Parts: sequence; structure tokens; C-alpha cells
Amino acid sequence: MEASHLEKCANLVPSSYIAQGQQFRTTRSNMVRILLEKQKVPEEGWEEEMIEFLLGELSQLDSNNALGNCGAGEREGRIFSSLVARRNYRLAHGVGRSGDVTAVQPKAIGSSILNKLCTKLMLDMIRFVGARNAKSCIIVPMATGMTLLLCFLALRSLRPNAKYIIWPRIDQKSCFKSMTSSGFEPIIIENKLEGDELRTDVPGILEAIKRVGADNVLCVHSTTSCFAPRVPDRLEEISLICKEHDIPHIVNNAYGLQSSKCMHLLQQASRVGRVDAFVQSCDKNFLVPVGGAIVASFNDDNFLDKVASTYAGRASSAPAIDLLITMLSMGVAGMKRLLAERKENYSYLKQELTKLAAKHEEKLLETNHNPISMAMTLSSLEECNCDVTQLGSMLFTRRLTGARVVPTFAKKEIEGHVFTGYGSHSNHYPHCYVTVAAAIGMKRTECDVIVKCIDKCMTSLKKKKSNAVGQNLTENNETNDVTHLDVISDDVTN
Amino acid sequence: MEASHLEKCANLVPSSYIAQGQQFRTTRSNMVRILLEKQKVPEEGWEEEMIEFLLGELSQLDSNNALGNCGAGEREGRIFSSLVARRNYRLAHGVGRSGDVTAVQPKAIGSSILNKLCTKLMLDMIRFVGARNAKSCIIVPMATGMTLLLCFLALRSLRPNAKYIIWPRIDQKSCFKSMTSSGFEPIIIENKLEGDELRTDVPGILEAIKRVGADNVLCVHSTTSCFAPRVPDRLEEISLICKEHDIPHIVNNAYGLQSSKCMHLLQQASRVGRVDAFVQSCDKNFLVPVGGAIVASFNDDNFLDKVASTYAGRASSAPAIDLLITMLSMGVAGMKRLLAERKENYSYLKQELTKLAAKHEEKLLETNHNPISMAMTLSSLEECNCDVTQLGSMLFTRRLTGARVVPTFAKKEIEGHVFTGYGSHSNHYPHCYVTVAAAIGMKRTECDVIVKCIDKCMTSLKKKKSNAVGQNLTENNETNDVTHLDVISDDVTN
Amino acid sequence: MEASHLEKCANLVPSSYIAQGQQFRTTRSNMVRILLEKQKVPEEGWEEEMIEFLLGELSQLDSNNALGNCGAGEREGRIFSSLVARRNYRLAHGVGRSGDVTAVQPKAIGSSILNKLCTKLMLDMIRFVGARNAKSCIIVPMATGMTLLLCFLALRSLRPNAKYIIWPRIDQKSCFKSMTSSGFEPIIIENKLEGDELRTDVPGILEAIKRVGADNVLCVHSTTSCFAPRVPDRLEEISLICKEHDIPHIVNNAYGLQSSKCMHLLQQASRVGRVDAFVQSCDKNFLVPVGGAIVASFNDDNFLDKVASTYAGRASSAPAIDLLITMLSMGVAGMKRLLAERKENYSYLKQELTKLAAKHEEKLLETNHNPISMAMTLSSLEECNCDVTQLGSMLFTRRLTGARVVPTFAKKEIEGHVFTGYGSHSNHYPHCYVTVAAAIGMKRTECDVIVKCIDKCMTSLKKKKSNAVGQNLTENNETNDVTHLDVISDDVTN
Amino acid sequence: MEASHLEKCANLVPSSYIAQGQQFRTTRSNMVRILLEKQKVPEEGWEEEMIEFLLGELSQLDSNNALGNCGAGEREGRIFSSLVARRNYRLAHGVGRSGDVTAVQPKAIGSSILNKLCTKLMLDMIRFVGARNAKSCIIVPMATGMTLLLCFLALRSLRPNAKYIIWPRIDQKSCFKSMTSSGFEPIIIENKLEGDELRTDVPGILEAIKRVGADNVLCVHSTTSCFAPRVPDRLEEISLICKEHDIPHIVNNAYGLQSSKCMHLLQQASRVGRVDAFVQSCDKNFLVPVGGAIVASFNDDNFLDKVASTYAGRASSAPAIDLLITMLSMGVAGMKRLLAERKENYSYLKQELTKLAAKHEEKLLETNHNPISMAMTLSSLEECNCDVTQLGSMLFTRRLTGARVVPTFAKKEIEGHVFTGYGSHSNHYPHCYVTVAAAIGMKRTECDVIVKCIDKCMTSLKKKKSNAVGQNLTENNETNDVTHLDVISDDVTN
Repeated sequence: MEASHLEKCANLVPSSYIAQGQQFRTTRSNMVRILLEKQKVPEEGWEEEMIEFLLGELSQLDSNNALGNCGAGEREGRIFSSLVARRNYRLAHGVGRSGDVTAVQPKAIGSSILNKLCTKLMLDMIRFVGARNAKSCIIVPMATGMTLLLCFLALRSLRPNAKYIIWPRIDQKSCFKSMTSSGFEPIIIENKLEGDELRTDVPGILEAIKRVGADNVLCVHSTTSCFAPRVPDRLEEISLICKEHDIPHIVNNAYGLQSSKCMHLLQQASRVGRVDAFVQSCDKNFLVPVGGAIVASFNDDNFLDKVASTYAGRASSAPAIDLLITMLSMGVAGMKRLLAERKENYSYLKQELTKLAAKHEEKLLETNHNPISMAMTLSSLEECNCDVTQLGSMLFTRRLTGARVVPTFAKKEIEGHVFTGYGSHSNHYPHCYVTVAAAIGMKRTECDVIVKCIDKCMTSLKKKKSNAVGQNLTENNETNDVTHLDVISDDVTN
Repeated sequence: MEASHLEKCANLVPSSYIAQGQQFRTTRSNMVRILLEKQKVPEEGWEEEMIEFLLGELSQLDSNNALGNCGAGEREGRIFSSLVARRNYRLAHGVGRSGDVTAVQPKAIGSSILNKLCTKLMLDMIRFVGARNAKSCIIVPMATGMTLLLCFLALRSLRPNAKYIIWPRIDQKSCFKSMTSSGFEPIIIENKLEGDELRTDVPGILEAIKRVGADNVLCVHSTTSCFAPRVPDRLEEISLICKEHDIPHIVNNAYGLQSSKCMHLLQQASRVGRVDAFVQSCDKNFLVPVGGAIVASFNDDNFLDKVASTYAGRASSAPAIDLLITMLSMGVAGMKRLLAERKENYSYLKQELTKLAAKHEEKLLETNHNPISMAMTLSSLEECNCDVTQLGSMLFTRRLTGARVVPTFAKKEIEGHVFTGYGSHSNHYPHCYVTVAAAIGMKRTECDVIVKCIDKCMTSLKKKKSNAVGQNLTENNETNDVTHLDVISDDVTN
Repeated sequence: MEASHLEKCANLVPSSYIAQGQQFRTTRSNMVRILLEKQKVPEEGWEEEMIEFLLGELSQLDSNNALGNCGAGEREGRIFSSLVARRNYRLAHGVGRSGDVTAVQPKAIGSSILNKLCTKLMLDMIRFVGARNAKSCIIVPMATGMTLLLCFLALRSLRPNAKYIIWPRIDQKSCFKSMTSSGFEPIIIENKLEGDELRTDVPGILEAIKRVGADNVLCVHSTTSCFAPRVPDRLEEISLICKEHDIPHIVNNAYGLQSSKCMHLLQQASRVGRVDAFVQSCDKNFLVPVGGAIVASFNDDNFLDKVASTYAGRASSAPAIDLLITMLSMGVAGMKRLLAERKENYSYLKQELTKLAAKHEEKLLETNHNPISMAMTLSSLEECNCDVTQLGSMLFTRRLTGARVVPTFAKKEIEGHVFTGYGSHSNHYPHCYVTVAAAIGMKRTECDVIVKCIDKCMTSLKKKKSNAVGQNLTENNETNDVTHLDVISDDVTN
Repeated sequence: MEASHLEKCANLVPSSYIAQGQQFRTTRSNMVRILLEKQKVPEEGWEEEMIEFLLGELSQLDSNNALGNCGAGEREGRIFSSLVARRNYRLAHGVGRSGDVTAVQPKAIGSSILNKLCTKLMLDMIRFVGARNAKSCIIVPMATGMTLLLCFLALRSLRPNAKYIIWPRIDQKSCFKSMTSSGFEPIIIENKLEGDELRTDVPGILEAIKRVGADNVLCVHSTTSCFAPRVPDRLEEISLICKEHDIPHIVNNAYGLQSSKCMHLLQQASRVGRVDAFVQSCDKNFLVPVGGAIVASFNDDNFLDKVASTYAGRASSAPAIDLLITMLSMGVAGMKRLLAERKENYSYLKQELTKLAAKHEEKLLETNHNPISMAMTLSSLEECNCDVTQLGSMLFTRRLTGARVVPTFAKKEIEGHVFTGYGSHSNHYPHCYVTVAAAIGMKRTECDVIVKCIDKCMTSLKKKKSNAVGQNLTENNETNDVTHLDVISDDVTN
């Protein structure tokens, strides 16, 4: 309530109360003032009402909500359903203008402020989680894959002759499609097996550059966050090569903002070599619904402007709204807590899975470079001739989602390219395994459920198999399971 | 309430009441049943509570909302903020899977049903508004420009050698960028002046095809909805040419779903010739917030599948949610009313602007082929040496948004191409003018405000000019106006 | 958004936009300012967002929402459930203090302002609908009956010896119980039949006063709004008697705010005689949920203060919140529309029921003094030996609620008193009848449904009866109906 | 989603997914089934969406929400504002019928179920917190004071000659007014000082009964929850006397549900003697907004029915809605946690205040029979001639609410009766003191704030006083404080 409005209430309640009310009012008013001045994530999260207030106030600055506004165009932000209006805080104009997804809209001042503010808070957040030298970022209302595609399209105009993208293999479909859909030919660099880990074949990258010629390479497309036993790419070495050969370097940091190790890798890479942009998912790092991604950069140059202006047309403001709400609600303190919990869960899950592996005479793969996920072999299942993929569907129907069971033999064709050992990031990984992640937002109790559920399903599978010997029984009690291959294909390709 | 639950209440209230309650319950239950069976927009719109109920029920089918679910992946649909959860109906997984934006997600059964259902209702709506032969459609969570870009990327893999897009000029930035950002070279076909109208130069298209060779043409990119004095393209002729030369034909029908004339054009074109897909905006036709577009097709072939699978990664479910709510809330009856009102507003606005033109000795341009917008010359302003663009900013600061003032001299460079007469869709349109639209959702009273506001501002401008003669006065009372060029650039480029 | 906050946004968007935003902001800010200054219902209703904003701002002034507040008492406005918090706008402290339901609470400045403001707007509304001389009012968070009881309790301390309440009979249970529950003995004045109307027996009142002695009379308790064929009491005559004999006069104006005739009666009565207070329902007049009543007065004296201070303890703020929202949302214009529609519906319903009466050889009773409801005889049903109460249950199960079927023979005991002809406000009303109201908020289409539904049910009843003659059939297809007597008892006693 | 509806979705998504969805659905469906069958508070709290679903389903059973319903009465549950509709879940008919606040409404089946269910859950809750033998309860939509008044009115018809209520003094205004407003004369039994505690003068009660005659006594009105140094009444002795003399016994258990000691007292009293009803506040025990109270009984007799039928008219359903939401959201587990935390806070606060007392050379009064609040003397302030009431206003303006500062000299007239030592429950309590409560919902950190804030203010007061000596300075920096007496009066009378 504006101070002057509260004063008017002095004819309704005693003025001594008004004075007390002004105190309360000022406390809140200051919080908003500081946010708008500093444009940083507040230390402590805001309560929901404050956040809705701010959104409401911004909304009132958009022309479709301006009292007395009249619309003579073809897009005037009218909303038919009051449900839709309410859930979108009556923010109807989206973000950006036709030529630039970060541009300010004259018709939508509030939406524009919201989007800019969200971007500033996001940059603050990115720095806080470890990329201290990050200089700028933009929020793109598309998921990670399409945002990588947008980066590649933006690079095209800068390197019109380039045809190839050099890509250390990561078996995630949208990563691959981001390159083929944008019209480029991926040069797949197979990973090297080091101990149990699958790591970047740096010499392979160099060789590929030499083979096709640096000018013909659009960029190197590397990855930080991935499922064990693959580990984050050797970003330092790659960025050095990129610098040396004057090749752009785009990093897929999909869910790396939650890991200080991933962020450290990026920060280091940017110091010693070339990193043009790193791309991350909003939903995977900030616990918002799917739909947005963040492109960030360590440079002052205008590559991000180029990316923004490659986006043709306006875009949904939903991701920015969800992010702004979440960052204000979380505060720096909330993010700290989440990061700390994640780290603890990672250790705890590792410890418990190690015990489980011992019990089943399996091995928890040693993949210490992977700070988020871990994998346990499934050799004992293979030994008793179980179909390991069946484990995947059993876990799924028991409401354990996201665990990926990876067989050794899968082949998959994507956009004309046949991958061997698909899902394992390798043509011939020596084990089949199950891999699970300790991701941000996970609860400690979930770690326990994971371990118990895998244990139970493995035991059950083996038992059935031994029962079935000589009886030629088909398994009936899993007939309601979602088809194996279907689930697997989800698991391994995301 | 399930029938069996209501029965349990018989120990709380008399059972005769329970029987009455079961009647009420059944009425509503039947509405849902019919919707899911027929998959058509209901004749009468639903009340909001019914819609929220359905969304809530779908939401409960997603794994992140399944009680007892445990998440072991990196994307488990967790939502940090309860505000965000609530506004998204806890639908966190978005739509699509990594390889296909229309694919069903095992983790998100409810979201998947929602998206499929929304698509079915949309197809019903598209047929209802005039494209009776439409066979399929997909909803893409990006605005029109990016969706056109996606179509072009999808075509690339089918026509790997094609480099050109033939494009009858339409001065809307995102249309142009959809082609350049996807890496193609637009061949601009200047419009022909016929009477006051700017119409498609069909021979020019033919000539361009011959010049570059049909195989090198990715597609013809035509437009239906546009600002007068440009009128919808001659779709029949273009589609015949495309058929004959085996060239794909993508139609930008941005806000054409609201016009039976635009839809008739499309329907006819598909009968006689080739239309591969037509793309339209969700917000401009269905009064939802910016963020989604619809690609529709008259064919059974799988071009739409190709488009869907070109999208790399999951996507926001926000557009589908907003559309589903809106279509259910609107009903067929609601859409009918909106279309009828729009038509009446169009006639009324025309009539009133004709009067205004007479008053100011201007002309309402005769652009009968344009069913949505109309333009009035501003010659009298030019004659007294006014800066016509100033009219634009005056209108804007008086809360009349969307009216475009188009001078005759504007030049603009977009992605390296210099457009002459930018905003007028023509190198040398003979008049400067102001153009306004009678768009869906507009109220009758807005027509009056438009006419009054233009009248007042023109009168004021002329008066100031005549006062200023010999006095060398600068105009002060408009100094707070949003900068002229800035607004203009918004107006003319959208 | 405070002006100074918006200024801070100048580092996010161009300052020319900020200027435009300030305009928008000021428009809204002025609306709030004017409301708080004038404390009158706005001419045009506010949009919902503005209303929620105001509620949110008030809520922030309550100590339970003050950031940094610490509670050391036993009632600190803590709310466990965020659902509950949200639906109550976090207003937890209710209204009033222990000794006075209108008192200001130091702990709840916002709630106190809300309640006071609501009262001021309500007084404005009461004057607008016709009681132009009304001087004050209070909102009591109890329905009409309990509020009448509160008035009687308040009168007790002023007239400690009084034992009787003189009450022109109105067959509504809560009216009767308001007197018996407060410990007084009602002196029932039977109504007089004049034509078809049941009207106040003024000499009967005088006689009663003489019989028991004026000092022993707590008050006269009269009624304006009632179901035909009873008509509003002769308020002028009653108030003259009260003035003359120095007896308080409390008017039950339950749903009379919606009728200019009822309000005129009150206004006149207050001019010529004595009216201490008139009590009306919030839900019946303002279309809010059940739960509140308004006590209003034409006097400056402090009877309302006495009523307020008779209420022991704090009370729910729900009625005040619902009323404030509704009055702001409705505006004076909205109320005008509702009143006009109601009048038209009354005439229309009368006209259609007259036709129906003719068809069934019944009579629409001539009860022109009743401005809201009307009654049609059911003689034809009686003539064919139908159980008229069955008509009531048939209407009810066909989703026609609120129509009262009144037989001539009903007896009912309430608190030891046996009423003859209960429901008809008379010991021996000559007809059985069905009575319906044209109440505020009713839609024109509902008038048609009422007439059709009564027609259909009467026809059906007669037909069954004639079929049943000589066949001794029991009626089966109504077995699911809510028990007759049950419904009747609801209908006639409310 | 009904099982049959989900089946219909098999033409939208693969049927294996439908099977998975049915599992999810069944889990939730079972929760509702069990609730309706057992009518007990669930062990674990429900998530908000489930609760809103249930409310929505109940709402759809009310006639105003039944599709196709037509209203012919004067109260048809129409709601003007969609904001109001939404916040009340479109439950418009309130609870009860004109003659009975617990009666089922034919027009409002859903509201009726809701109210009955809420009552059943509340009885379960009352038993859980300690009154294991409680037999019935009703929820009354008025706060504690008015509900006590309702009980007294109900007793009147059973004891028509009784004029007196015997009342061990408790200085809470609404308690006193509940007796005077209902028209009875309180016989005040002064408390006895035992150590630091103020306890019931049992012989005084006996003497009073003898003085006026048992038949003339309406009831004894005792209290459990109160502010130290008063302690809960000797319920066992009182109930024995009541049994012996055949006098009703109404217990004000305002916030006693949160204390196992208070509940034990009640349980014991009911075993050995007579307790007709015990009344408690909804807001103080269950952390909902002010507005409701619960009357509970250990007996099967029909006193509660009498209370319910004394309420004249329908009533707001707001308290029942808030309670139902809260109990479902809390679960038994949540209540357990809250009770345990409260107990811990009580001990902790006691410990910290003991330290504070030592520091200021004060004494924490020994009031072990009071399980909720505690008091510290303020002798040192008196000694330096400070106005102790000033401490109250200082605490208040520093956002410490609910702490009561009680001077020794206060006199107050309420309804003609002059209380000496008002606020202290005693004519001559030997100390002035500050009293604070460890109430349910309080956070541990609040305990710390309380102690610090009292410490700081006392120190500051003493310092000012010593500074002021010989300087005759007026205190300026507290001029904005809410007037002392005003706050005090709030503090001590509530």
C-alpha cells in the first residue's frame, strides 16, 4: 500500500495504528526497492505473497492491463479465459520482439522488466553456483536441445562455410538432434575408456579438426553433465584447442549448475581457453516445469545478442515467470541448502549402492569424475540369462522413475546414424549396468527407496529365472508393465 | 466424486439426498466422458471449475504427482515453488520427448493425454472455422516465426540441396527472420499495386522458380493474414504453381483462423494445388498469451511428423494448457460469437473510418480483399509538413496500441537486406497511411475509441503545425512520448 | 507499484517506457485513493486483480503478516495451512475485539480498516437502494436470525423488565426462534386477509400492547420481505404506534434491500414513526455465501453500538471480505443492473404465471403489495385428490429449488408453540398454492424454466391420478424423490 | 479421474500407460474412500491438491452448482463475484437450517456432508488430544465468547428460573460478556492466592450456591486455559459440586486442546463429576482464522442438540471449510508434531525467562499448574518509578505482540461491574508482571525474540528513567507508539 493511501485510512482507524502500519509497509517496500536496485537474488527467499504482488504490479504495466487501453492491432494481449489470465498473471505479450527474444516491448513494459530482471537474477545465480566470471546470460523459452540448435543457427551466420560440429559422444537424443536439425553434420568423437570412466578423446578432436579443416568446423559441442560411467568432458583441453584453432566452443551444461565441479570446469576452461557459450536447462537446475534454457557467456562480446536475434518472433514468458518466482522464493540461502543436500545425497547414495553391489556381487563403477550420477554393474543378471532391460521396466512400474538400465548390445538409428551400444555412450562398454542420479531436489528418503527398489527387483528377477528353469514359464505378473523397449528407449535417450 | 465415494456419505446425510447428489454427479461425469470419447470442442463452453478439475485429474497421472513415486533421474518434475506448481497445475514434464515434440512421455501420462487431447480439439476448431478438409495439426510451443523456421528446417532434410525460399514480400520482421535464421536465402517477390491493394505477383514467382531452378527452391512461403493495403496472397495460383513444379508450399496464416475468407482461401488452395502446411499463432486467434503456434495440414502424409521430430527436446506445456482451457471454456458457441462480433466490428470500423476520412479529406483505401484490417491515407498531414510518424507515437501514448502509421520513405536493413518503403510491403506505395485491424476479441466500443483517437490526434497535429508557422516553436507537450522511431519500428515490423 | 520503485526499473528498460508505465500506475493508484477518501461504492465495478491487490495490501498491515513479527500471546493469527491462508488472504484475526464486534484491533490494522471500509460502503449501498436517510450500519458475521437475536439481547439491557416481543406472524422458523432463543415470549399477531393478501393486523398490535403493558414489551418485530400471499407489514402504522408507546421497533428486512418498495416502506416509517434498526441478510441481497447480516439504523443514537457491544468476542471476517469484494466488483452500476433485471423478471414471471394459471384453471393470487414473490393456487390438484405436497418434491427433484408448495392443513410445533396452517402465515388461508420469488440475480431464462417445470409437474400429477383411479397403483417413479415432508418442511420454514 | 474416463484415453496414449495411470488413480481414490468410511483424521496429512479436489467434489453436490438447476426462492446460493465464488469453493449455502445449525440442507448436500465430516474429524481430534471419552461435538461459526453465550441461552430453556452463573474470575472480557449479554447475572468467585498461583476458591463456589439456591443457578462457568499467574480451575472439585447439586457445568477450554494437562483435567472431571459441555476456539487450537468454536461433550444426552437448535438460522460455512482443510492437511502426525514442539517451547521459554529474571533481579512466578503461559515480575521497573504499562506499548511497537503487561492498580468497568486489579484476575495480586504464552504454532526462534525484546525494553526503560532524573525530559522517541492504555486494554482483556 502506498504511504499516501495508508494515510487516507486515518479516518477509519486511529492514526497511531496508521503509524504502526507505515512501519510494516516500509519493510516490504524496501525489499522491493533493494531487489530493483541491486538486481540480485535476495539472500533469504521471499514469501509467496510478496512475489505475487510484484508480478501483479509488473502486469499492470502491460498495455493489455492498462485501464482505458484500446487495441487496434492484431495482437493486443487479450485473454479469453479468466483462468488463463489468472495463471499467467495476465501477462499476455510474451517476451521479446519479432527480431530479438530479449528485446523490450513498448506494449508490454511490465513483461519487459520482468524478463530483464529475471535475466539479471539468473546471472547472479550462475555466478553464485560457480561461474564467477560469467558476464551475461539470456533466458530462452525452449528446452536445452532447441536452445543448442539456436546457438548453432546463430553461429552459422558467423561461419557461413562451416558444415561440421565436433561432438564427443553423449547418448542423449536431443543433443544429437540439435545438430542434425540445424542442418549440420556431427563428427562423433568416441569416448575413451579410462578405468571404468568414459572420457573425452582429446587427440580424436584434434585429428578431426585437421581432417576437415578448422574453417569447416562450426564449433565443438562438449558436455559437462551426463550419466555415469560417462564423465564430464575435458573442458580445459577442448577450450585450449578451440582457442588455438579459432573454433567456437559451445558447452552443453544441461544440469551442471547444480554441481560445483561442473561449474569449476567451465570457469577454468574459460580462463585458459575458449568457451563461447554454455547452455543449461531451467527445469533440471531450478526445479521449474520444462520449457526454458539459459545461454550464458564469460565474454563481453555479442554472441549472446546474436543468439537472441536469431530467434524469430516473440516467445512465451512462462519460463521467465516460473524462474523469477522460483529464484525469489528460493533466495541464495535456499539454493545453498539445495546444493548442500544434493552433495550429501550423492555421498549417501554412493555408500548405499556400494553395499548393495556387494550384496549382489556387483560393482559400483568407479566414476569419480562424475559428480551427479553413478552406475552399478548388472553382471549377475546377465549371468543367469535375465533380460536386463526387464529390470528397467520393473523399476518403472514400481514408481522408481529415471533409473536407466543400459544393456551392452543396444543399437539405435537416429537421423540416419546408427549408434552401437546406444545408451552407454560407447560402442563397447564392458558392462551392462543401471545408472542413477543424485539430482537437485532429491530427498534423502528417495536414496533409500532407490536402493531398496533395485535390490528387490534384482532379487525377484533372479528368483523367477531360477524358478523358470525347466518349467518354461512365462512371466505373468509383469504383463501390465509398460513395454520394456519403450521404457528403455526413454531411459537411455531421454 | 466417484459414485462409490458418494455412497459412503450415506452415513453422514440421508440417503435420499445421496440419490439426488448422484444425479448431479452423473451430469458432470458425462460431460467428461463425452469429451474424451468424441475429442471435439464442446458445443457450449465449460465452467472454469470443470476445466480445473480435468486438469487436476490429468496432473495426478504424471509421475511427479503420483503418490509414492521416487525419482532417480536428472529430470523428475520436481517443482520448488508452490506458486509455480499451482499455476502450472503441477504439470512439470512439459510435452514431447527428446526426439519428437508430440511424442508421449512414459513419465507424464497426464501431460501426454493433455497434449494429445488439445491437438484433437484444435483440429476440430480449425475445421470449424473453415478448413474443413484439414487432416492433422500439431501444437508447437514457439511463436509463429520460430514455427515457420522449424518447418523450413524440417523441409531441409527432404530437399537437402535447396537454398532459396520464394517469398511474396510481407513487411513483418519475424517472417523474414524465420527464413534467414534457418539458413536460407529469401527470394523476395515484390507485390503488385492493383487499385489500392498490394497483391501477389504470380508471374514474378514463376520467373523466380525458373531463374534458380525448382530443385533449389526449398518452398514458397506465402501469407494470408496481413495489414492493409497488402491483401492475402493469391493462394490458389501459388499452390497450383507449387504442385506443378513439385515445390513445397508453406502458408503463414498467422491470424487467419479468425477470418472465414482466409480459411476459404486455404481450403480452395488445398483442393486445386499444393499446400504442405499452414502455420498460425495461438495468441492471435485464440486469445491466449503469446507462446504457441499451430502447424496444420490437409494431407495424410507425414510432413507434420517430420516437423515434430525436427524439434530437439521437450517443450513447455504452457501453450497446450492455455489452449485447452480456452477451447473448453469457449466452446463452439463462444467461438461463433467471437467470429460474428469480429465481422460486425470490421464493417462498423470501416463505416466509421470512411466518415473520418471524409472529414479530414483523406481516403479509406479500397482493400476489400483484406478481411481483417484497413488503412486510411494521411495525405493531409504530409501536405502541412507534419511528421506522420509523430501521429504513431501520439496514438500510442494515448493508449491506442496496435495502430500502425506507415510513412512512404522508411528504409530498414534486416539481416543484411535493405527494404525500401519498409512497413508498406512495397518499394513505392503511393500514400502514407494509418492501418488498423478489427481483430478477434475486440469490443465495439474500441472501434469508437480508435476513430476518435485518430481524429483528435490528427486535428491536434495539424493545429500545432499551423500554430508553429513563423514561431519556430518546438513541441513540448509530447516530450514524454515514447520515441517516435522506436514506436514506429515496433508498429511496422511487429 | 510505487512510483519510486518503477523509477528503479529505468536501468532495465528505456526511461521513456517508464514514463508510460507511471501513467498506467497513476490511474490505478487514483482509484484506490478515491475509494479510501470517499468511502463510497465506486460507480463502475473494479476488476478482480485490483480488488485482490487491495486485500493483499490490507493483509500486510496485520501483525501476523508483518515481517519480523513475534507472537507471545495465545492468539497470534498463525495459519497452519497455506490453502487456508490463501483463501482468507492471510487475514487471520477476524473482526472486532472481545467487547465489541466493530472495535479496531491493534494487532490487525488491515483487518480493522477492511471492516470499517466495508461498513462505510455498505451504508452507501443501503442509501443507494432507497434508505436515503440511513445513518449508520454494522456488519454482523451471523445470518439474519441470529442477528435479530443479538438485537433483542441488546434491547434487554435497555428494557430489563420487558418480556414480550410483538410479532405479526411470518412463517419462517428462524424469525420465531430469534425471539424464543433470546428468552422472550412472542405475542403472535395473526395476519388479516384482505383480498388475496395477508396483511398486518394493526389494531391487533395495539390491543396486544394494551393487554401486556408497553413497558413489558421489548419491541415490535415486523417484516418487510416475505413470501406471497403475505405482504410486507404496514410499517408506517407500526412505527407510529411504537413512537407513541415508546416501544422499540426492529424490522426484519431480510431480502428487502433488493426491492425499492421495501426500502421505501422503511424510509417512510422512519420519517413518521420509530424504527430502531432494520436487519438484512448479506447473502440474499448481495449474492455472497451465507454468513452475514447487516443491522442498519436511521438514527444517530447509539443502539447499533449497543448491538455491537453485545456480541461477545471476535468474529469471522469472512462476511466482510466477501461483501467488500462484491461491492467493489459490482460497483453502483452493477447493482443498478441487478435491480433493474430483477424488476423485469418480476413482471415477466407474473405474466407467464398468469398464463399458466389460466391453462390449469388456477388463479395467480393478487398480491400486489408483495414486490418480490407471487403465488398461484393449486385448487385443481386438490380437486382431483392429489397430495399437493408431492408437487413440491417433484419440483425439487427436477432441480427447481426454492418454490414453496403450501397446503392448507399443515400444523407445526416450534419451541412449544403449535402453528396452524404453517407455511401460509395464516390459520386458515383459503387456498393451497405454490409460491415463487423473482429474486436478485435470477436470470430471465430461469423464469421460463420455473413456469415450464410447474406446468409439467402439475400435468403429470393429474395424469397419474386419473390413471390410478380404479387401479390402486402406487406411484413408483418418484421413489427416489427426497421425502415429501422433508422438503416441505424446508420449503415452508426455510 | 474416474476409472472409466481414463479408459477412454486409450485412444490418445498407449494402453500400457493407461494401466499405469489407473494405479496412480487408485491410490488417491482409496485415500478418499478411507476418509469417508472411517471419518477420522488421516494419519499423514494430505497434499493441498487432494484437499481442494475433495472440496470441489462436495461443492458440485450443492444445488447452486448443479448444472441445470433453476432457483425460484429468495436464497439460491448465487454468487456475484467469481473471486468470492473461488475463495469459498462455490459453497454458498452455509451450514445448518433455520432451526438448527447442524441440520442437513436439502439444497446443499455437499455443504452438509462437509459439515458433518468436519464434525466427525473434529471429534476424532478432540479424543486424540486427550478427551478420550468425548462423545460428540458441534462446530459453531462464532468465536468462543458468543458460543458460550449460545450455551447459556440453550440452558435457559432447561432451567427457566435460573438467573445466576457462578464464575471463578478470569479477566477476559468476552467471558464476562457471554454471561451478561445472554441476560444472566455472574456471581464472581475471586481466586485464591496459593504461592504465586491464583487458584479456584472451591468453598467460595459452594457458599455462593447455598446463598442463591441451586435452582437459581444456571450453571457454573469454569475455565481451563488462562494466563499465568492464574491457573486452570480445579475442574474435578467443581464438577463434583455440580453433580451433587444438579447444576450444569460449562467449561471454557478456549485454547486448552493444545495442552494435554488441560485435556486431562477435563477427562478426569467428566469421570468423577458433571461436565455438560466444554467450549474451545478453532483459531487458538487449530491455527485457522478467527471465527469458529467447538462445543464438545462427554455425554450421549442431547445438550449439544439443544445448543445447535438454539442457533437461529443458517451460518457461515467458512469455519468448517477452514477446519476441514486444516485437519486433512495436518494429519494426526502434524498435530503430534505441533503439540510436541509446543511443549518443548514451553520448557525452553521458561528456562530463558528464568535467566532473564535473574539478570533483572525479577522472579519468574512459580505457576506450574499453568501449562501454557508464564509470568515474570516487573518489580524493578516499579522500583525506579517507571510506568510499567509503557513496557507493554514498547514491546508492541517492536513487533512483539501478545505479551501482556499487567499493573497492580488497574480498575475497569464492564457492563456495570467494576473490576479491581483488572487483568490480574485478582483484586490484589502482589506483583505487577509481564505474561507470555508458549502457544501452539510458535517457533523456537520466537522464544528467543521474546526474551531479547523484553530484556532490551526493560533496560531501555530503566535507562531513560535514570537519565530523566533532574532533567525533566519528556520521552520523545516513543511518541509514535500506540497509546499505552489502548494497548494495555487490548492486552489484558483480549
